[in-house]
Amino acid sequence: MASLQNAPLVFVPTMGALHEGHASLIRRARRVAGIDGSVVVSIFVNPTQFGPREDFSRYPRPFARDRTLCLREGVDLLFHPKAEAMYSTDASVTLSERTLSLGLCGASRPGHFDGVCTVVCMLFQIINPEIAIFGEKDWQQLAVIRRMVRDLKMPVKIIGHPTVREEDGLAMSSRNSLLEPEARRAAPRIYHALLATAMEYESGEHSVAKLRRRLLHDLASIPGASVDYAEIVHGETLQSLKKINGSIPARALVAVRFGPVRLIDNIALVLPS
Amino acid sequence: MASLQNAPLVFVPTMGALHEGHASLIRRARRVAGIDGSVVVSIFVNPTQFGPREDFSRYPRPFARDRTLCLREGVDLLFHPKAEAMYSTDASVTLSERTLSLGLCGASRPGHFDGVCTVVCMLFQIINPEIAIFGEKDWQQLAVIRRMVRDLKMPVKIIGHPTVREEDGLAMSSRNSLLEPEARRAAPRIYHALLATAMEYESGEHSVAKLRRRLLHDLASIPGASVDYAEIVHGETLQSLKKINGSIPARALVAVRFGPVRLIDNIALVLPS
Repeated sequence: MASLQNAPLVFVPTMGALHEGHASLIRRARRVAGIDGSVVVSIFVNPTQFGPREDFSRYPRPFARDRTLCLREGVDLLFHPKAEAMYSTDASVTLSERTLSLGLCGASRPGHFDGVCTVVCMLFQIINPEIAIFGEKDWQQLAVIRRMVRDLKMPVKIIGHPTVREEDGLAMSSRNSLLEPEARRAAPRIYHALLATAMEYESGEHSVAKLRRRLLHDLASIPGASVDYAEIVHGETLQSLKKINGSIPARALVAVRFGPVRLIDNIALVLPS
Repeated sequence: MASLQNAPLVFVPTMGALHEGHASLIRRARRVAGIDGSVVVSIFVNPTQFGPREDFSRYPRPFARDRTLCLREGVDLLFHPKAEAMYSTDASVTLSERTLSLGLCGASRPGHFDGVCTVVCMLFQIINPEIAIFGEKDWQQLAVIRRMVRDLKMPVKIIGHPTVREEDGLAMSSRNSLLEPEARRAAPRIYHALLATAMEYESGEHSVAKLRRRLLHDLASIPGASVDYAEIVHGETLQSLKKINGSIPARALVAVRFGPVRLIDNIALVLPS
């Protein structure tokens, strides 16, 4: 595909099971593309980014509903390939990222971000977008994608789009529907813990150790939750911070499990301007 | 970059030290591009495809001569980046190929083809060619690049261009200039050994073991040469063949060292039609 100047092709890659968070990404894409530009959405539950004990087979795939949402939001092209069309049985070339992927979600999901980089690279080659939009909810993924684009000189502008939340604060995720009712009621407290951390920072607590201890404590006290990680990191390099101040794009990132369902969320730590 | 229909952008990636082999690639590119198309040549001695004990620092870099050759052959754009412009100091995303790269040159050059894939991917992202031309002399490289383009869905057509030889049969290579005079006199016997193998096959010898034994014997008897490998493989999968017949694109591939200089060459094994 190719596009005219001022009529950009804007791409929103997804794994389907579209919710209001995706709808918001697509509306952003529609605004960025303008009247003359095009919005392409892909729906592909990419097998290579799931580990052997992860939820690939039970990941929701409500394709008819997804298509309706795309039509309603003015998507110009919906790309929904079969796995066999994406991966040859003897496929042997992959991408790998060796720094940003090591910690956080990468620590408990080895190979996950290599699978993400490989499939996003393939999708970029197929779609050839000028602009691609990713949700900020998957902050580590966004950082890894930005790094891939920088390192491999991909001619794609990456836009990170703010997390959309349920009314109770829970970050929208296709995995929320897999939560038991009790876990669903408790899950908003993940965001409340992040908010409390951000507010503590804003009101003058600049000790990363203290902020993190409070965050871990708040998460650990959520009924039914087990904390996978809670870190305060540099927003681009994802390196753990020792100190924070206004000149560093600090971010608190967490992953919490409710039984087999793993949820992630994050928040910026910013000083009042 | 983007190009109009029937005015393709044709790309010839090189490491410079251009010789008649490269000139032949560029002339092929010029023919394929036509009057309206464009020919882009890159010159970049890519550090990431050299091993720590390889010849990166002594690889020849006669840039002024290279530029003259490009001008003479009607190249439209010469891309000659600095290493710092290609690789950030904290670069962390690379490509890797896990099947075709394992044997042959890959066995003695670990990481080499990952470096090649990474830089060619980067060059493709920067140049955005419709067509790219690679020499058949680096047969394993050509097979790996074709695999990369296939697996990552890159919108680039790969053309393999036949090896150009000196009058005495030696495959043209930037490394030939590094040979001592005696080695230079002996080196054409690499091609003679390949030719003898192809002729033996053509005249009815279909035992891979016998063909390979003869090839190894011929190479081992070249004064000053030590054989790195001599294999008869499937031309696309690079798998060692047990049997050959007319329906398999069989190829004999060899690597021979003269002191610190390592030369490669290959030949198709085809039945008379």
